[in-house]
Amino acid sequence: MGCGILTSMKELRASVEWRDGHLEVIDQTALPARLEVRRLETVAGVVAAIREMVVRGAPVIGVCGAFAMVLGLGERKPATAAGAHRELELLSAEIGAARPTAVNLSWAVRRVAEAAARGGTVEEVRRLALAQALRIQEEDRESCRRIADFGRAELARVSRVMTHCNTGRLATSGIGTALGIVYAKAEAGEPVEVIATETRPLLQGSRLTAWELMDAGIPVTLVPDSATGPALAAGRAEVVIVGCDRVALSGATANKIGTYNLATVARANGIPFYVAGPMTSFDPQLEDGSRIPIEQRPAAELRRFDVTPPDLITAFITDVGVLRPPFAQSIARAIDQAQRLGLR
Amino acid sequence: MGCGILTSMKELRASVEWRDGHLEVIDQTALPARLEVRRLETVAGVVAAIREMVVRGAPVIGVCGAFAMVLGLGERKPATAAGAHRELELLSAEIGAARPTAVNLSWAVRRVAEAAARGGTVEEVRRLALAQALRIQEEDRESCRRIADFGRAELARVSRVMTHCNTGRLATSGIGTALGIVYAKAEAGEPVEVIATETRPLLQGSRLTAWELMDAGIPVTLVPDSATGPALAAGRAEVVIVGCDRVALSGATANKIGTYNLATVARANGIPFYVAGPMTSFDPQLEDGSRIPIEQRPAAELRRFDVTPPDLITAFITDVGVLRPPFAQSIARAIDQAQRLGLR
Repeated sequence: MGCGILTSMKELRASVEWRDGHLEVIDQTALPARLEVRRLETVAGVVAAIREMVVRGAPVIGVCGAFAMVLGLGERKPATAAGAHRELELLSAEIGAARPTAVNLSWAVRRVAEAAARGGTVEEVRRLALAQALRIQEEDRESCRRIADFGRAELARVSRVMTHCNTGRLATSGIGTALGIVYAKAEAGEPVEVIATETRPLLQGSRLTAWELMDAGIPVTLVPDSATGPALAAGRAEVVIVGCDRVALSGATANKIGTYNLATVARANGIPFYVAGPMTSFDPQLEDGSRIPIEQRPAAELRRFDVTPPDLITAFITDVGVLRPPFAQSIARAIDQAQRLGLR
Repeated sequence: MGCGILTSMKELRASVEWRDGHLEVIDQTALPARLEVRRLETVAGVVAAIREMVVRGAPVIGVCGAFAMVLGLGERKPATAAGAHRELELLSAEIGAARPTAVNLSWAVRRVAEAAARGGTVEEVRRLALAQALRIQEEDRESCRRIADFGRAELARVSRVMTHCNTGRLATSGIGTALGIVYAKAEAGEPVEVIATETRPLLQGSRLTAWELMDAGIPVTLVPDSATGPALAAGRAEVVIVGCDRVALSGATANKIGTYNLATVARANGIPFYVAGPMTSFDPQLEDGSRIPIEQRPAAELRRFDVTPPDLITAFITDVGVLRPPFAQSIARAIDQAQRLGLR
C-alpha cells in the first residue's frame, strides 16, 4: 500500500492498512476528485480523521480506532505494564468519543484494551494490543466475505441491484456488506449492475459508491433518492440491498437517512428488501426500534439516520447466514450462534 | 413593480407583471441569494428566461409565453392584419418550443393566437393579444384563489402541511396552488406551518419554497427528500399537499420527481395526500398514467418528473372544487363543469 495519489483501488489491499508502525487510509473526503492515501501516525490524527469523516463506515472506523490504541501506547511510552493498562483505558474513552453513534468504534477499542490487559510487560501489552487490532481487521474482512457468500447464494438469480449509501470497499476492511454481495457476484463472473442512490445529505452514494463501482468496472447508474420509486416501478432493479448501522432484536434497523423511504417504495412495488451486515451490528440491548433514534445526540446526527420497521425487511444477510421473519426468533438464534462462533 | 434587487416579495404584486409594454419577472435562478427583478423586452429574452428556468412553474411559464406573443408583434411590426395573424402563428410555435413539457405554455400561446385572429387591423390584433394575455394572467390569479379557498375548507382542522417542490407565489401569478392553501390559511389567521422537501435534483424546495415561506413569515422546516417517511412517521405533518404538472383522466398525476415516493410513504403512514391544481392541468386526451412519461423527450426531462398512481391520492383540490375517488367519474365531471364555467 503506497502513500499519495493513486489511480485505482486495485493498487491497494484495503481502504485501511497497518504498515511500518502507522496507519494508512483512503481519504474519503477527497473522493471522487482524487484517490489519496493519508498516513495517520498519532491518536490525535486518527481521532481527527474519524471526526472529519476522512474515514467513515462503521467497520473501518472500528478498525482505525483499534490501531489508534496501538499508536497511543507508542506516543505515551508508559514505563510499566500497569501504566500501559491505565493508558489503554484512557485511550479507549478518548478514541471512543470521536464518533459517539458508531457502535463498532467503542466495541473495537474495548476489545483492544481487554485483550492487552493480560500483558505482564509494556512490550507484551503493546504486542497483544496490536495482535487484537489486526485480528479485528481480519475478522472484518472475513465477515464481509461470509456476508457476500451468503448473499450470492440467496440472490443467485438477481443481476440488477439497487443500493443506498456506501457499504463497500471504502466502508470496510474487506469487500463490503451490501456492495460485497455485488463484488462477489462480479468476481464469480455473474452479470451484475447497480442502481445507486445519491444519498442525501452527504451524497455518499454519488461521491463514494458510484466512484467505487466504476473503479471496479461494475456498471452503475446514479439516481436521486427521490427517484427510487419510479425506478423500481419501471423494473430497473430486482432487489434492494442496504447496509445497517444498528439492528434491534425486533429487526428494526437504524441506517442512513433514506433507508425507510426506500424500504417503503420497495414494498409498494413488491421488490424484496435485504439488509446486509455483520452480527456485530445487532444489538441485544435493544428490544425494538423505538429506542434506536438516540434522543441525546445532536440534531445533525439524528437527521443522518432513520429506523426501518422490520415488516418492510425481507431478510438480513449476515456473517452467520440469512435471517428470515419472524425476526424476533431468527435474530436471537443468530446472536447465540455468533457468540458460540466468536463472531461477536 | 420595480426593477432591480428587492428585499421581500411583499414589495411586488406578483412574480410576473406586464408593465409599460414589457415583462418584469423574478429571476428564480438568483434565489435564495438575492431577490432580483429582470425586465424582458423581446421574444428571445422570454424564450431564454423560460429555457434557463429564470422563470419556472407551469402557470408562470404560460403567462410569460402569452405576453411574449405581444412582445413579438411589437418586434416584428407586421404591416397588415393578415401579416399579424401569420406572425402570431409563427410566434406560438417558436415560443411553445421553449419548454416542450409545459402544457400551459403551448396552451397559453394558442389562446393568444386564436383570440387575436378576430382582429381586423394590426392595432386591433395587438390589442386583442394583449387583452388575452392579461386575461390568462388574471384567470391564473383567480384559479389560485379558488383552489386556496376550496383547500382551506377541506383542510380546516389541519395546521402542519408537508409539501414538495415549489407551488406558490413564484410558480404562479397568484398565491399558488398547494402553497396557496397554506397562504390562505395564514391570511385567515389560522395556525399553519410547512415541512418542505429540498426537491432534488434542482433543489426547488430548498432554494425557492423555503425562501418564499420565510419571506412570507410562515414557519418552514426543510427536509431531504429521503427524510419524508421518518418525518411523517414521527407525526410532523397531518397532510401532504403537492402541485401537478399534468393529470390523466384516471387521476394518475405527473409531477416533479419525488412525488411518487412521497405519496407512497404518506400512504404507508396513513397521511392524506392531496394534489392541488387548476383544471387546466387535467388532460382529457390522457386516459391513464401509462402515456404520461413522454418517451420522446430527453432523458433529463424524464428524470425531472414521475407519475403518481391515483390509488395513492386522497383528493384533487381544483378551481372547481375537491375531486374525490372514483376519479374516473369526478375528473370527467369536473372537466365538463370547468368548460361550462370557461375555466379551460
